[in-house]
Amino acid sequence: MRIAPFTYRSRAIDVRFGRDQAAEHVLDYVDTHEARRILVVATRSQLATADRLTAALSGHVVARFVDVVEHVPAATAEAARRVAADMRADLVLSIGGGSTTGTAKAIALTARLPILAVPTTLAGSEMTDTWGITTDGRKLTGKDPAVLPRAVVYDPALLDRLPEQLAVTSAFNAMAHCVEAFWGPGANPLSSIIAAEGVRQLANGLRTMRSSLPGVVDQLQYGSFLAGLVFADAGSGLHHKICHALGGAFDLSHAGTHTVVLPQVLRFNAPAVPETATALAGALGVDDAVDGLFELIAATGAPRSLSELGMPANDLPIAVDVVAEKLPIDNPREVTRGSLEQLLAAAYHGEDPR
Amino acid sequence: MRIAPFTYRSRAIDVRFGRDQAAEHVLDYVDTHEARRILVVATRSQLATADRLTAALSGHVVARFVDVVEHVPAATAEAARRVAADMRADLVLSIGGGSTTGTAKAIALTARLPILAVPTTLAGSEMTDTWGITTDGRKLTGKDPAVLPRAVVYDPALLDRLPEQLAVTSAFNAMAHCVEAFWGPGANPLSSIIAAEGVRQLANGLRTMRSSLPGVVDQLQYGSFLAGLVFADAGSGLHHKICHALGGAFDLSHAGTHTVVLPQVLRFNAPAVPETATALAGALGVDDAVDGLFELIAATGAPRSLSELGMPANDLPIAVDVVAEKLPIDNPREVTRGSLEQLLAAAYHGEDPR
Repeated sequence: MRIAPFTYRSRAIDVRFGRDQAAEHVLDYVDTHEARRILVVATRSQLATADRLTAALSGHVVARFVDVVEHVPAATAEAARRVAADMRADLVLSIGGGSTTGTAKAIALTARLPILAVPTTLAGSEMTDTWGITTDGRKLTGKDPAVLPRAVVYDPALLDRLPEQLAVTSAFNAMAHCVEAFWGPGANPLSSIIAAEGVRQLANGLRTMRSSLPGVVDQLQYGSFLAGLVFADAGSGLHHKICHALGGAFDLSHAGTHTVVLPQVLRFNAPAVPETATALAGALGVDDAVDGLFELIAATGAPRSLSELGMPANDLPIAVDVVAEKLPIDNPREVTRGSLEQLLAAAYHGEDPR
Repeated sequence: MRIAPFTYRSRAIDVRFGRDQAAEHVLDYVDTHEARRILVVATRSQLATADRLTAALSGHVVARFVDVVEHVPAATAEAARRVAADMRADLVLSIGGGSTTGTAKAIALTARLPILAVPTTLAGSEMTDTWGITTDGRKLTGKDPAVLPRAVVYDPALLDRLPEQLAVTSAFNAMAHCVEAFWGPGANPLSSIIAAEGVRQLANGLRTMRSSLPGVVDQLQYGSFLAGLVFADAGSGLHHKICHALGGAFDLSHAGTHTVVLPQVLRFNAPAVPETATALAGALGVDDAVDGLFELIAATGAPRSLSELGMPANDLPIAVDVVAEKLPIDNPREVTRGSLEQLLAAAYHGEDPR
């Protein structure tokens, strides 16, 4: 069997995964790397967690930046960088979700400081070298090895009290990383295997998720780790281009937007990537990937339309404009302004193909 | 579902895989990294290939080291290092199998030079930070980030004329990396997924392999890449401890030793790791992993006993001594001197449990 040419680029990263082990792993990293001046980035709601995870540190200078804002506005990035510079930080310890990690990355982007990331959602950005900063309603994103955390500490216990609805949309956000990894610019046979496993873990977690989040969140977080890993490797495509454009322009919930847009993008692309559709169906444990994904979203009560996320109807043409600006978009199926109009209208109304 | 705690450490490496693309990828690496003084390590039999792959280089200082010896004797390592120092090399371009890569690593170990590896067998050591140097009949091995190649160029066309028997044992050597990854000290859920895929690719390649090596070598090389990747991640266990001890002490064929020893180690460990046995059976496409592996070895005509590899019968007690020196060995099932005697006797005679 011939193997199609591929490129695989792995990055150096140290991952620890263990329930109730975060404090121990943070201490171990700080000790091993002899960090002395630590800037903790966390939202106010995560401060108690941050205090607990840094309680064992002794003789270190610890400062906090808590003014984390979703999509990392440029002013927030600047403010965080100032704190890092003022305290002469030698480590950024990020404890939180995607916006917190994003803020830490904004610091690392200019200050070239190492990041130790402790994710408290399923965002997955802790595994990537992608940064994003929002200026004037537009999210500028880029890649830089300096923003890839040196180490990531996963502790599912930190997610036990995650609001169930956020866990669901965050899991679909992670699933979007996996799905998009199949056709991203850096897609390779290896990333596809890991992506399929990520979809399997996330789907199984979502399916067994009832009121008992602590019972399945380990699986969801493991899935989100795989999702971040393949996303870093395979890169982003149509789905992420749409979500980032919408997120930056309309201040929509990041995970919610992913949840709504993913099935519409998969529906659009599936006919052009039959092998991916088959692999996804297998990972989802269903006959048809598109139908199966819609079913899973419906079963979990996740949002299915941009209108549910609070986007006013008259923003739809603007949304098409904002995304169309990114054309041409590299994608297995040609993306025209017309197909974007159709896709975004379907996402707006939460059209169900079943 | 709870996920057992794990550690995952990825290393930065740049992999290109493409039939007939080696020359282009070598040139691209040299240009991108502005290498000027290149030491090519290759056996004499690979010199034509080496010349072809470096033909497009212009204005570079290129020297060659061709006195590659299996298991990298200390004197060979010293000689290669002298050449690198004399020419003030800034890149070691290794073109060959495990012994060639091993020689390049011996240079990098002391000279801290980057390695660009172009594998021409299925050895897989190009993906690891493990080095090995043989002194007085004992192979000393170690790990050092400096010996991990910065980039690996896989070109299955370079393996088209690999002697079929070497391809077979080399594929089983790769399979040993995958199998051992399931219980190696750094084993994690991710390495197990990739290891299973490696076993699947290698077994399928071996099964469809008749006289037409070029038709399946792509798949075998892809499998060996996965094998090297998981071996670097999960580390080595009982199987590799035995093979390295035997290889260093008796100058046996490296790949042949792996082929002979692997089924005996799997047979010994399988009762202690039922989930691994199930995963391996699935990857091999058989009901029982141990029987299936023996069957595959028999079907490919690979060596099944240490005696076939030329080890005299009266060396068997010495072999037990050499391996027993490594006790205690971390392994899912306790390894005693008695179990080593039994295991090595089975390997010596090529005992078939079916």
